[in-house]
Amino acid sequence: MEPIRLGLIGFGVVGAGVGAILRNNGPALAARVGRPLSLIHVAVRDLNKKRPALPEGARLTGDPFEVVNDPSVDIVIEVMGGESPAFELCSKAVANGKHFVTANKLLLALRGEEVYRAVEVAGVELGFEAAVAGAVPVIRALRDALAADQVEQTRGIVNGTGNYILSRMTDERVTFAEALKGAQELGYAEADPTLDVEGIDSAHKIAILAALAFETPVDFSAVYTEGITRLTPEDIIMAGEFGYRVKLLAIARRVDGQVDLRVHPAMIPARQFIANVNGPFNAVEITSRAAGANMLVGRGAGSGPTASAVMGDVVDIARNIVKGGAGKRYPMSAPVAARRRLPARPISALVTEYYLRFTVPDRPGVLAELAGALGRNGISISSMIQRGRQENEPVSVVMLTHKAREADLDKALAEIANSGLCAQPTMRVRIVNDERA
Amino acid sequence: MEPIRLGLIGFGVVGAGVGAILRNNGPALAARVGRPLSLIHVAVRDLNKKRPALPEGARLTGDPFEVVNDPSVDIVIEVMGGESPAFELCSKAVANGKHFVTANKLLLALRGEEVYRAVEVAGVELGFEAAVAGAVPVIRALRDALAADQVEQTRGIVNGTGNYILSRMTDERVTFAEALKGAQELGYAEADPTLDVEGIDSAHKIAILAALAFETPVDFSAVYTEGITRLTPEDIIMAGEFGYRVKLLAIARRVDGQVDLRVHPAMIPARQFIANVNGPFNAVEITSRAAGANMLVGRGAGSGPTASAVMGDVVDIARNIVKGGAGKRYPMSAPVAARRRLPARPISALVTEYYLRFTVPDRPGVLAELAGALGRNGISISSMIQRGRQENEPVSVVMLTHKAREADLDKALAEIANSGLCAQPTMRVRIVNDERA
Repeated sequence: MEPIRLGLIGFGVVGAGVGAILRNNGPALAARVGRPLSLIHVAVRDLNKKRPALPEGARLTGDPFEVVNDPSVDIVIEVMGGESPAFELCSKAVANGKHFVTANKLLLALRGEEVYRAVEVAGVELGFEAAVAGAVPVIRALRDALAADQVEQTRGIVNGTGNYILSRMTDERVTFAEALKGAQELGYAEADPTLDVEGIDSAHKIAILAALAFETPVDFSAVYTEGITRLTPEDIIMAGEFGYRVKLLAIARRVDGQVDLRVHPAMIPARQFIANVNGPFNAVEITSRAAGANMLVGRGAGSGPTASAVMGDVVDIARNIVKGGAGKRYPMSAPVAARRRLPARPISALVTEYYLRFTVPDRPGVLAELAGALGRNGISISSMIQRGRQENEPVSVVMLTHKAREADLDKALAEIANSGLCAQPTMRVRIVNDERA
Repeated sequence: MEPIRLGLIGFGVVGAGVGAILRNNGPALAARVGRPLSLIHVAVRDLNKKRPALPEGARLTGDPFEVVNDPSVDIVIEVMGGESPAFELCSKAVANGKHFVTANKLLLALRGEEVYRAVEVAGVELGFEAAVAGAVPVIRALRDALAADQVEQTRGIVNGTGNYILSRMTDERVTFAEALKGAQELGYAEADPTLDVEGIDSAHKIAILAALAFETPVDFSAVYTEGITRLTPEDIIMAGEFGYRVKLLAIARRVDGQVDLRVHPAMIPARQFIANVNGPFNAVEITSRAAGANMLVGRGAGSGPTASAVMGDVVDIARNIVKGGAGKRYPMSAPVAARRRLPARPISALVTEYYLRFTVPDRPGVLAELAGALGRNGISISSMIQRGRQENEPVSVVMLTHKAREADLDKALAEIANSGLCAQPTMRVRIVNDERA
């Protein structure tokens, strides 16, 4: 029987996982699809690098454009990552009438609208379940399962590296640098961990989810993004004493016709489900009007989970090819023409509770100065702790606030910074007490 | 623009929820689909009963066959429940070329293969996300997201009523009867709670999930089914002392080419995620070879969640109608012709640890007799507790066993029952320590 022919761009960790699924699961996949799947063309960056054997007859190339221009290829799988040339490859593949499956969150966060439009115009299929939270079916939940509902909020832990580091900082009371080193040794963090620990990878993912959940184009630069590099063991211990766990949270919320989009460390009540998602796990919670809160948890990265998600999309599309339905659905929950741009809500409009850690000299009057600056800007304090006394050494003063406006807090913290009182920059962590936050 | 025309069979709690979504979300749904959705024909059991207003122009009938025979109806939504006439209505609708969306787990557990085959032959679409765990996208996870993976196990808490009752028994130390009464007062349990508390509803759902996960027809009578009615507060308290929580677990496992399918109360280590899913929530954990364990949690019942799931399927199908792809996909993960019947694994072949509670007279020699019967059948005891002493009154002796074969334990318990030693039938609860259990 005529196979469905696959082209693969990128043969790193995920590409090797794709190869493994095709090798181990071939007959089962052929039975599910109704025709065999055959990997016929593979593009790699370095032709001389040692790599797992390719299937018999597969062509290897150093030029990914050969794959998207190969007239025999039915479905292109892109697992190379990055914006360019991934975007150009996607555009070319789609223009050539090929279906496109990608794990590339950066591509979709930055160029998603162009991709969705091109896919819809070309009448091909787009698979991108692997772009967010591996094989955890968050894309299908938003696009299909909740297609009749009104999503109010999507939030989650969508970066396994960051969550692993925070879990180690919490469980072993080590510093960020120590936890990062451990993560790198285990292969959970890359040599350059910036995308993960600065929250950028999480921001990519929440931008994709928001675009889907709220049927709006998302301007990626409008996503407020703050990483976990400044958190100290002290912050995490103090959070625990107040009943919170610290997580790198990605939040997309619909508020007053605006979209609130942000990634930052958050203190979450320890009793909440999402506060207990630890190690390399991802969790995405979707709150919609009729269904309430749904939570999806699983491994969000790694060769197996990502390849499972990629190949799930491939099988899904291949079945549609066999049945004649391929390209006869929208890539998003609604046709591109029905998408309306919702304005971004600035972080300054956020109203929440805050954890503040000041590093100040241990002398009378300091507290009054801090409290004064906060009070003048309408920030009211719910708890305060000062631990230890060290004469001539700065000490930590930790305050929790009642609900306050971020813009007001910014002003208060600027006053405090200008006063020269603090020996170090003040640490601020947003507290997420509400289920809708 | 020409609407997509819906027929609705059943206008109870879920039917009213469907009506509410159409009313509240109409313009958004029309934008997503590309054409408006219009409810044109509704069948109810009792024409005289008071009910929410129908959309203008909708016909009301007491005969559901009128809906499936209405040539204007594009999609039939069946939320009446039960096997008959739901099966006949489904068959007729499908034969008439209509797409079919159902929340009816009993129908699919008992007659699923016939339904899947008829749908595939007719080239129409089947939506049944609502049949298991409400809007939690377990059907899409198994059918689509994990379509390239090999599912090894699916297990979960899929009955909100049972979970609510167990949660109250755990938190408030009330009896089953008291917790049931509370659930009934809150509308979480029906007047006749048999399907829920005897595990039958859970068995329906796990049969559907197994048929999908393992691409096998399932003989519903082969699902081992045991409810929660015999559990006592003492069992739940003892479980807690040993570090377990008691849940009504539905398990579908692939073992040695067989399918192990069962529903029973289970003691689960309190640290496991699923042990902490409480109240009316459902959770389904899917373990597959490449992706590992994915867990999906949400409200599994009620008007809003079920109607959201039903209408999600409707929108999904309506989009396909507009784009010309409707009916061009398989109802299950594989074509019916590719489905192979896997043999059922009998419960007697189960190997696990057990909690046993004997009710015996408090006199010397009794323990030796119990231990003797267990030992003769190869059952070894890991812990034993006897609480209190009441002369001339039977007392509880609780034992935990090491891993044992269910068939051996059956023999030992039969010997003990025949000895006339026990004042009441012995309580046995299976312990699920392994992630794969």
